[in-house]
Amino acid sequence: MSSIKTMEELFHDELFDMYDAERQITKALPKMAEKATDKALAQGFKKHLKETEGQIARLEKCFQLLGIEAEKETCEATQGLLKEGDQLMKDVEQGPVLDAALIAAAQKVEHYEIATYGTLICWARQLGHEDVATLLEETIEEEKTCDETLTEMAEDHVNENAQMAA
Amino acid sequence: MSSIKTMEELFHDELFDMYDAERQITKALPKMAEKATDKALAQGFKKHLKETEGQIARLEKCFQLLGIEAEKETCEATQGLLKEGDQLMKDVEQGPVLDAALIAAAQKVEHYEIATYGTLICWARQLGHEDVATLLEETIEEEKTCDETLTEMAEDHVNENAQMAA
Repeated sequence: MSSIKTMEELFHDELFDMYDAERQITKALPKMAEKATDKALAQGFKKHLKETEGQIARLEKCFQLLGIEAEKETCEATQGLLKEGDQLMKDVEQGPVLDAALIAAAQKVEHYEIATYGTLICWARQLGHEDVATLLEETIEEEKTCDETLTEMAEDHVNENAQMAA
Repeated sequence: MSSIKTMEELFHDELFDMYDAERQITKALPKMAEKATDKALAQGFKKHLKETEGQIARLEKCFQLLGIEAEKETCEATQGLLKEGDQLMKDVEQGPVLDAALIAAAQKVEHYEIATYGTLICWARQLGHEDVATLLEETIEEEKTCDETLTEMAEDHVNENAQMAA
């Protein structure tokens, strides 16, 4: 039986999915911060944890505006993305090479979020939920900035340190 | 035991991961093309299948240039991303709303690939594999174009048809 029949239902489903994704991410970031050797990177993960908590609160505000309750949903994509990060933390020795790997893993998660929030904003606007779209735009801007900051860190010194580390 | 100790090893590991990802994607795209009701969208998925096959050949060329053999690796992130797409094909009735959902699912996969190829190109260049970087740049351009085409389709008519379908 197909349970989703309208665009509005699809939109809610995708919001619930993202709500679970963000909560999974809050559990992963402290582990990544702990494993990072580079101070700026560890700091960056901690900063993004705070941001992610704000993004969860923003999603709750969206549910309120839409008059819906968050439904339990498991974001399998995020599970897979975070499993990949976990695997790297096992396979790569702690140090500069793992730092480079952690940046790569984090950027995949950021891109997942950028793609999903991009879709959500587009759907929100089309469905006439301008207030929700505005809230989600604040989040997507944070994700894009986070992604750019990770690129800068990699290019500035993390990748070079990783290469030297051999 | 940590099996990855150098940037070069990390680079190979990430290439093997992407090689599995692309092969998983070639299995998912025909299902998505079959489920799409919108003709342009179904056509787009078929076109991207051909592109993906070319991207696999390009990765094999990279292995050759690096003098390495592809190692068996399972890309768990792609598994998760595709599971999400499978779930949508079960949960959403075939028709315009599923078309909108399929675009969203495909864009998440595209963003995963853009993030990963972005990292691979950066690492290839740093490790002095300019020839590999050039090949991967062809692929990332295809992924970005595919992502943009999906956005255009969504904005041009797919989302509107999905909204009308209720």
